[in-house]
Amino acid sequence: MLRAKSTLLSFSQIKYDVKDIKLAEKGSKRILWAEKKMPVLKQIKEKFLREKPLKGKKISSCLHVTAETANLAVALKAGGAEVYLCASNPLTTQDDVAASLVKHYNIPVFAVKGENNETYYKHINAVLDIKPQITMDDGADLVTTVLLKRRDLLKDIIGGTEETTTGVVRLKAMAKDKALAYPVIAVNDALTKHFFDNRYGTGQSTIDGIIRATNILLAGKVVVSAGYGWCGRGFAMRAKGLGAHVIVTEVDHLKAIEAAMDGFEVMPMREAAEKGDIFVTLTGNLNVIGGSHFPLMKDGAIVCNGGHFNDEIDLKALKKISKSVKNVRDFVDEYTLRNNKALCVLGEGRLINLVAAEGHPASVMDMSFANQAFSVRYLVKNYKNLENNVHIVPEKFDNEIASLKLNSMSIKIDVLTAEQKEYLNSWQFGT
Amino acid sequence: MLRAKSTLLSFSQIKYDVKDIKLAEKGSKRILWAEKKMPVLKQIKEKFLREKPLKGKKISSCLHVTAETANLAVALKAGGAEVYLCASNPLTTQDDVAASLVKHYNIPVFAVKGENNETYYKHINAVLDIKPQITMDDGADLVTTVLLKRRDLLKDIIGGTEETTTGVVRLKAMAKDKALAYPVIAVNDALTKHFFDNRYGTGQSTIDGIIRATNILLAGKVVVSAGYGWCGRGFAMRAKGLGAHVIVTEVDHLKAIEAAMDGFEVMPMREAAEKGDIFVTLTGNLNVIGGSHFPLMKDGAIVCNGGHFNDEIDLKALKKISKSVKNVRDFVDEYTLRNNKALCVLGEGRLINLVAAEGHPASVMDMSFANQAFSVRYLVKNYKNLENNVHIVPEKFDNEIASLKLNSMSIKIDVLTAEQKEYLNSWQFGT
Amino acid sequence: MLRAKSTLLSFSQIKYDVKDIKLAEKGSKRILWAEKKMPVLKQIKEKFLREKPLKGKKISSCLHVTAETANLAVALKAGGAEVYLCASNPLTTQDDVAASLVKHYNIPVFAVKGENNETYYKHINAVLDIKPQITMDDGADLVTTVLLKRRDLLKDIIGGTEETTTGVVRLKAMAKDKALAYPVIAVNDALTKHFFDNRYGTGQSTIDGIIRATNILLAGKVVVSAGYGWCGRGFAMRAKGLGAHVIVTEVDHLKAIEAAMDGFEVMPMREAAEKGDIFVTLTGNLNVIGGSHFPLMKDGAIVCNGGHFNDEIDLKALKKISKSVKNVRDFVDEYTLRNNKALCVLGEGRLINLVAAEGHPASVMDMSFANQAFSVRYLVKNYKNLENNVHIVPEKFDNEIASLKLNSMSIKIDVLTAEQKEYLNSWQFGT
Amino acid sequence: MLRAKSTLLSFSQIKYDVKDIKLAEKGSKRILWAEKKMPVLKQIKEKFLREKPLKGKKISSCLHVTAETANLAVALKAGGAEVYLCASNPLTTQDDVAASLVKHYNIPVFAVKGENNETYYKHINAVLDIKPQITMDDGADLVTTVLLKRRDLLKDIIGGTEETTTGVVRLKAMAKDKALAYPVIAVNDALTKHFFDNRYGTGQSTIDGIIRATNILLAGKVVVSAGYGWCGRGFAMRAKGLGAHVIVTEVDHLKAIEAAMDGFEVMPMREAAEKGDIFVTLTGNLNVIGGSHFPLMKDGAIVCNGGHFNDEIDLKALKKISKSVKNVRDFVDEYTLRNNKALCVLGEGRLINLVAAEGHPASVMDMSFANQAFSVRYLVKNYKNLENNVHIVPEKFDNEIASLKLNSMSIKIDVLTAEQKEYLNSWQFGT
Repeated sequence: MLRAKSTLLSFSQIKYDVKDIKLAEKGSKRILWAEKKMPVLKQIKEKFLREKPLKGKKISSCLHVTAETANLAVALKAGGAEVYLCASNPLTTQDDVAASLVKHYNIPVFAVKGENNETYYKHINAVLDIKPQITMDDGADLVTTVLLKRRDLLKDIIGGTEETTTGVVRLKAMAKDKALAYPVIAVNDALTKHFFDNRYGTGQSTIDGIIRATNILLAGKVVVSAGYGWCGRGFAMRAKGLGAHVIVTEVDHLKAIEAAMDGFEVMPMREAAEKGDIFVTLTGNLNVIGGSHFPLMKDGAIVCNGGHFNDEIDLKALKKISKSVKNVRDFVDEYTLRNNKALCVLGEGRLINLVAAEGHPASVMDMSFANQAFSVRYLVKNYKNLENNVHIVPEKFDNEIASLKLNSMSIKIDVLTAEQKEYLNSWQFGT
Repeated sequence: MLRAKSTLLSFSQIKYDVKDIKLAEKGSKRILWAEKKMPVLKQIKEKFLREKPLKGKKISSCLHVTAETANLAVALKAGGAEVYLCASNPLTTQDDVAASLVKHYNIPVFAVKGENNETYYKHINAVLDIKPQITMDDGADLVTTVLLKRRDLLKDIIGGTEETTTGVVRLKAMAKDKALAYPVIAVNDALTKHFFDNRYGTGQSTIDGIIRATNILLAGKVVVSAGYGWCGRGFAMRAKGLGAHVIVTEVDHLKAIEAAMDGFEVMPMREAAEKGDIFVTLTGNLNVIGGSHFPLMKDGAIVCNGGHFNDEIDLKALKKISKSVKNVRDFVDEYTLRNNKALCVLGEGRLINLVAAEGHPASVMDMSFANQAFSVRYLVKNYKNLENNVHIVPEKFDNEIASLKLNSMSIKIDVLTAEQKEYLNSWQFGT
Repeated sequence: MLRAKSTLLSFSQIKYDVKDIKLAEKGSKRILWAEKKMPVLKQIKEKFLREKPLKGKKISSCLHVTAETANLAVALKAGGAEVYLCASNPLTTQDDVAASLVKHYNIPVFAVKGENNETYYKHINAVLDIKPQITMDDGADLVTTVLLKRRDLLKDIIGGTEETTTGVVRLKAMAKDKALAYPVIAVNDALTKHFFDNRYGTGQSTIDGIIRATNILLAGKVVVSAGYGWCGRGFAMRAKGLGAHVIVTEVDHLKAIEAAMDGFEVMPMREAAEKGDIFVTLTGNLNVIGGSHFPLMKDGAIVCNGGHFNDEIDLKALKKISKSVKNVRDFVDEYTLRNNKALCVLGEGRLINLVAAEGHPASVMDMSFANQAFSVRYLVKNYKNLENNVHIVPEKFDNEIASLKLNSMSIKIDVLTAEQKEYLNSWQFGT
Repeated sequence: MLRAKSTLLSFSQIKYDVKDIKLAEKGSKRILWAEKKMPVLKQIKEKFLREKPLKGKKISSCLHVTAETANLAVALKAGGAEVYLCASNPLTTQDDVAASLVKHYNIPVFAVKGENNETYYKHINAVLDIKPQITMDDGADLVTTVLLKRRDLLKDIIGGTEETTTGVVRLKAMAKDKALAYPVIAVNDALTKHFFDNRYGTGQSTIDGIIRATNILLAGKVVVSAGYGWCGRGFAMRAKGLGAHVIVTEVDHLKAIEAAMDGFEVMPMREAAEKGDIFVTLTGNLNVIGGSHFPLMKDGAIVCNGGHFNDEIDLKALKKISKSVKNVRDFVDEYTLRNNKALCVLGEGRLINLVAAEGHPASVMDMSFANQAFSVRYLVKNYKNLENNVHIVPEKFDNEIASLKLNSMSIKIDVLTAEQKEYLNSWQFGT
């Protein structure tokens, strides 16, 4: 069923599919390096190890297979769970990390960077084959597969979690259609998640992906950010911080005014297309850069995606109007249009921070994955009381995570005095 | 009952109490200047003029009496309402605007910059004497007065609105105590209000107030922002934008991490007290800078308030430990401590942007007051269905206001295609 | 010869011409407030008081008559000089400061805010009538008057100083024409002057002037900075820091690339004219915004000058194409063009930071005027060895001033070790 | 003499020493990619190809062997020169580029990433063996070798060029010692070089190197920039732009004040050592972070060098106080101190932007190397008139390069009118 017979052999009695088990040593270094930057998750892991709150639970995870994810998987396992992991994107797996998870942590991983779509879904099915109680998604591919093709699994599943804005939008559409058959916690919507991960994490790592792929100087460039949600504003802020002149495109009036008042130029993509040197989509939507935009672009323009799915850029349309495509540098494909302009698409339109760089830095994933760990524990305790809907992460987790994080950053803050608490709860006195 | 018999004479048949009616011409210029910067409110005024949705309603308003507020009052009057206006702070009235409202618009105003506390409450009672159907508050002094001292008015009141974070906190305390006796709309909580007014408005105008009061160079100074809510982050962002090194103090863990990741130093006030050149409180809380902090400060440190009430800085405590106080420049009082350091308090601890400068620029008040106008109209239509609680501004108003505003800024944005709308509502397809 | 007989009466035996001697108390407060922010100049004053290095010298000064200039005049007087002061711009005098200089410091001042051109030159001649040894200029009006009309004074003059970029350009043109008849020190070109005064000083104070004149929100506005010299980049940086989208126009290729790499849009004025909400000239050149640009501007656009002379904006051309002009707010004249658009010109095109605000904050003028004081002392000692040319401020003054300033800011820095000094002077070792 | 007999075989009749000639295809892609981002150098190359200004000249180059350098070498060859290239740092060679230069361009390269010090100097001697007329240096290692050990070569050498601040400091020390035996042009000091390369280039690429080496989130980190020269301020600006709180250390008073007024904290390294999460040296000096600083640092602190030589960090001292050292990630060595804290040194203290990333982006090297090309041509034409000293790049080259660059960025600027030119050259008129 999987990639190659030879790699399907059990390693210490487990099944897995990774690129090369010999990469494990390098992967191990990365996992340990990330661990040091994830003090909150580490504390949770230690607590889980003592309390075993997930004992006997099987978790199918479909996440970007990175050093940070490895630490989450290890923490869940420490809590007593059996964790299986596949990739949430064909291009984002860190093969060395995958190997180390298998070899050093006995966690079955089914993910190979560059796998094709068929293998991608084979891997998804492989992790679902364990009949999980919990699904852990990044983009909702597991839950969608269960609902559309593996409904037999529903009887075992008590709940799921979702990591991304895109996945949450999708889940809410399911819920609206009454299709969602078990409760899912929108980890993305925790403040300690999207305030940080989507903004500071995506901001820096998307820049990082673009620079690694192109070694281009951002100072003096016109950078177009499609979208000014949490990811978009994180990216726009950092591109500005590196000296770019940033143009924002939006479909939401309020976000558009915010972008303008934050000092960005705001205009429709049709106009931005003529001005940009670098285009990045961070919208969670479809064909945000489409067939009509490409011919307007400057010769040499760079186009990439910082959102979840690779359909934000309409590559089919681009191919149609191109005379030729050639790879000119790792992760850079040059499309020569019929109008003889050349456009460079990075990472095949997949999320560039994970394709060309290493994804979000560990210190933001620390909070995101602390939310995942707490949410799984919460599901195990409370699933019977949860409707088949999208649920928020309980507020107390946010506070606890924020407090742990701040402490790990050696930052101290003020504490309300009794007098101040009373003041905030009273209303009689005035001017 | 009011300041002086002689100014209590009717002007074109109305009662009022303003500093000097002869200032009206200058005030008129300011009102017209602000009007040009308030295109959304202007469109609403024109609509109100045609539709008269507030016909026959009496509105008691307690707001900062500025050129922007004047435009709101005029719009409400255009909608058919009878509007009475007093100040929501003893130091923030623009006396020329007050005069013009009386003379040119026949709107009764009871407000004099620098009025004492007694007169302040006399003015509040004066606008309540009209037996309003609606109270419009900025800090909840009207509703508090009604609930504690003028309960006879409750039978006429159908609802109220509240402009500020501070007022909303106070109203929620009332509601929690079951004391709130009529529905109040939290205008502050509209996105088109606090995203802009509290952040960009307070940010710039607080800086403006400090510079006008002191003519100090911000570049190279250590500026302490107490609070990183919407106002605090607006201020911190602008102080940084002018070259200051900004320290943030907070009581909330999440906001503290955000501040740190936005590049600010975060520490308790006790530590910040020793480092700051300029301190600004933007918290909505009590004694945020208190008796224990002053002696730690540098000689020459500047202390001021950007929040609502003048109790954020504990001036009583400061006076106690001071040998002398003298006024050294308009809006600057120098306190000489027993340790011989001199501290400068600006504007007697009242909100500096209105005391020493002109308050929020018209273009942000445009959106805030558009929400006020829409909220009043909404109350008139829907009060029977509203509980005696704090209510949010209906989301559609936010969208409408954002759309009108964007249009007035000549900014065009993208519109979702049918395909994109469908995509956002579907969930079946994936990677 | 001067404004009015009645004000020409001697005050404590001196002649002067100020607006109203009764303003002296208020002016005194401003001078003392500024003094506290000028610790370097204060130390020089104290040294001068002991050493009297300027004993018996007469200095004619033509500077902006502000609280900071007052402190310079006082320091020079402390050094033994006889100082006469007139304004370097008809609109920039702080009348209360002028009064205090006369009344409290016995320093003759000839300056009235709003004086016409005729009075302006009468005042220049009044301070030259003392037959100075030294001229102190801000824009080179004194030296030009001497060279063109008062050549009889040349026999007494040993040298001069010049404060501004504009003046230095003018002096270099004189020197090139062999017209400069005595040595002049280009104080402007000291690093401790133009790095700080022109950049941070002009940056903040120009913003300040615009906001005081208009109370406009900068966030979301398109601001056009004509020029990216030290003043221009200071202004552009601060406008960006307040949330504006900043466009830069330039005539110099290198500065234009810098502006682009600093994240600004760069384009010719012809294009910028259509896009800007606010235009500021900081070029030292003529008609930078001219007759062809005005009709292209948006309705409501604001135009002002942050440079030295009021000819950067071609107001004559604007008047020609306007149907009417009216004053709509202090310092704001609204020109209605024949195409019915209204443009707002601030402060009659004179440098807005001094017209509508208080000019550069004292803490930057501290370094600029420390250079002035040192330069005057240097002239007295060394004039015999100086050619009739433009001279730089000796480097050691820069170092001394920087060191004193840093110390006053309580900032400590590293000191080169002996090993490091040797390393920097050696070349033998390598990779 | 060189690395291995087998690689010393002639490739198309030339000698060379590269890591692996089979890497040439990948290197070729990088060279072509860089070429597209270097439009100015490309135009010079085309001109050189027509005019052959360097005909018959032999050039020994010691530069970082990168894709950008490759384009310079190709341009010089196009001008008729014979170009030999070695590395200016043992760790900065791009081995694939080296291979492509040999294979595709017949340019002899002697450079292998990771070569030891002995090989480093063998390579230097290899490129000197050709008896060059011109030396092209990046750090002055060629000229130093010639002066100290290969004085026989002096009779052929007509001049040299130098790329870096560090090299220029060293050359000036030579000139001061009367040791410099031929004229050298300080390419570094051209405005179109250090304004851009040192500031925007070093700024971005140093950040890039740190992130690639560590994948650390900069937001919320305390970053210490040792030095606020052109490189230091470029780095500090970008670190701030990515959300770090930046502390600057300096030995120069003026630069320290600038740093403070740009909003940075300024303090001695001794104090900064306790506060920093990440330390970067950009000083051109020795032991800037030394033995006394390491024990003060936080556990987990990261230390790296963005300057030229690897002696800015005193690694010998660090080793002495460490219990153990281990490699924990590519380019990351973890030193465990006797106080049990672990410090991470990146890239063995060598300049991190070239060790862990790809060095300066092509678009800034475009201007730097255009200066190199023009300077070599200038030397060939004018060497007879040049003293044995350090010379500046003639100003006209700066203007020409800036103009070409601006044009390549599609940026148009204003042109002075005749009236404006006259105005700038005249001085008679005034206020």
